[in-house]
Amino acid sequence: MPDTNRQLLLKSRPTGLVSRDDFDAVTAPLPELRAGQALARVRFLSVDPTMRIWMSDREGYLPPVALGEVMRAFGIAEVISSKHPEFKTGDLVFGMTGFQEYVILSSGEKLPFHKLPAIPGVPVTTFLGVLGITGITAYFGMMDIARPQAGETLVVSAAGGATGSIAGQIGKIHGCCVVGIAGGAEKCAWLTGELGFDHAINYKESGWKEKLAAACPQGIDINYENVGGDIMNTVFSRMNLHGRVVLCGLISGYNQEDPALASFATVLLKRLRVQGFIVLDYAPRYGEAVAQLAQWLAAGKLKDRHTVVEGLDRAPDALAMIFKGENIGKTIVRL
Amino acid sequence: MPDTNRQLLLKSRPTGLVSRDDFDAVTAPLPELRAGQALARVRFLSVDPTMRIWMSDREGYLPPVALGEVMRAFGIAEVISSKHPEFKTGDLVFGMTGFQEYVILSSGEKLPFHKLPAIPGVPVTTFLGVLGITGITAYFGMMDIARPQAGETLVVSAAGGATGSIAGQIGKIHGCCVVGIAGGAEKCAWLTGELGFDHAINYKESGWKEKLAAACPQGIDINYENVGGDIMNTVFSRMNLHGRVVLCGLISGYNQEDPALASFATVLLKRLRVQGFIVLDYAPRYGEAVAQLAQWLAAGKLKDRHTVVEGLDRAPDALAMIFKGENIGKTIVRL
Repeated sequence: MPDTNRQLLLKSRPTGLVSRDDFDAVTAPLPELRAGQALARVRFLSVDPTMRIWMSDREGYLPPVALGEVMRAFGIAEVISSKHPEFKTGDLVFGMTGFQEYVILSSGEKLPFHKLPAIPGVPVTTFLGVLGITGITAYFGMMDIARPQAGETLVVSAAGGATGSIAGQIGKIHGCCVVGIAGGAEKCAWLTGELGFDHAINYKESGWKEKLAAACPQGIDINYENVGGDIMNTVFSRMNLHGRVVLCGLISGYNQEDPALASFATVLLKRLRVQGFIVLDYAPRYGEAVAQLAQWLAAGKLKDRHTVVEGLDRAPDALAMIFKGENIGKTIVRL
Repeated sequence: MPDTNRQLLLKSRPTGLVSRDDFDAVTAPLPELRAGQALARVRFLSVDPTMRIWMSDREGYLPPVALGEVMRAFGIAEVISSKHPEFKTGDLVFGMTGFQEYVILSSGEKLPFHKLPAIPGVPVTTFLGVLGITGITAYFGMMDIARPQAGETLVVSAAGGATGSIAGQIGKIHGCCVVGIAGGAEKCAWLTGELGFDHAINYKESGWKEKLAAACPQGIDINYENVGGDIMNTVFSRMNLHGRVVLCGLISGYNQEDPALASFATVLLKRLRVQGFIVLDYAPRYGEAVAQLAQWLAAGKLKDRHTVVEGLDRAPDALAMIFKGENIGKTIVRL
């Protein structure tokens, strides 16, 4: 049995790109196993963009990794000694192993480990990809939020990455025209070659925005968004009415403090639903609204107030007033 | 019968605030009524922030007003002469009257006029406010998108305006704690006094962000957003998990070209649904995803690819790689 454990501890919160200098490599003693625990040797670590959020002091969906703590990471480990009721030596488990050689599994943990099933012909690393959190992310983002329909146009950013490559393939399974945005010719060739994407746009080439437009002659119905920034803005500008955006990641913003991204980062981290809204879409149901509003008004539950501007010629002034905030309640012009 | 019609034509597309100089006042001859038409005298014009979008050349939810055309506006008019099958002299009608003294109603119009009902005790101007497009907007935004629950905290921006003041009252009807953000002491006093808002925050006073925080000790569940910019960012930062944002207006951005607002303007104009998304929320349903993904993988419909980095000590490099876009597919570290 090993008695030491090499670990990478978080030393500093990165300000830009992650570097080795943000970590301290230490060799810590491995404690004796207590009842209910198992010792597992880490075999594979998953590397995910969201780790950059965990390294910051930003209030996210999980607490930040504390300075001096083992860096948090998903991984696969093999049980080599067990006093744990669920795991025996030789079991492969998935969970938050962290950046270290060995991990101790305890029963009753908040983020418990799961034993991996053995599927013939499926390498264990697939449980970090298509059959792991990555695939599960793409699955729910596409199936629950995007809800792809045959014939729709799906644009995936960071399409050469772990989640994007699966999200695009799920779009193809559902009969979408799938356009991937990725950086570099090799990624693009993989998307259109092996994965069957209809188009791949290399955003590192000049003219990529025009190529994206040409690849989406019917506009864009679904955006599976992993990047943010200029790529997101460009895709948004070509979205169709009532399009759906799965805001899954904002990788372009994780390494910098970009005020333009701050609100979208909040949408992501707080899982907000932002719904653009133009009342004309509800025209067939106006009567329903007026009936209820009139009832509330009659019952004294709603109060009405107008700011009245006199004369047609002052209509432009009235319009300017509402942008200067000089009105209270509804502004109208009396002729 | 009148034979001339004073009209305000759109002369130029404003670059900042709307001004009189953006319009040409002309006196045009009134043509003879044809069969199927009625002549109506405009009595009231509605003044709405969205008119600023119609004045720009921006592709919106309605075509821009052409230069030289009568400025588009909702209004109430009184029929004074009719060869129209639906309207008779004395009828009050609501529709796109435009900035002019008289409007000709024709049968079969794309945006038809509607005859206003007479409700005892309700002034006709209420059909531009609570019982008009303004009230209908607040109604569907709150009832269909926000879906307020008793005890939730609702923050309304531009709360002293036409739509915001009604949206907040609908929140009160449903038992929400309602906080209005408005500019000026008079508006704020009206919100908490007559309308029964729980708190009103004057964003023109220093320290308003702290006051907003103090007014929302449980965080914010619903944001009825009319403004955008700094106000929206501040509200967003205090939203609760899975909060709902009704993106109804971005009045702070209509008068300027703000790149940070461009994407939110698209969300609004294209009625996009943006859903922040963190896969941990789906933990109870992971099995469903893995079962389907495994089936697609077995059927050859999904392809898996890994970028493998060797050794624990290179884990930080692997993390930096995905931000530099040097990986293809899922990045993992093998120990």
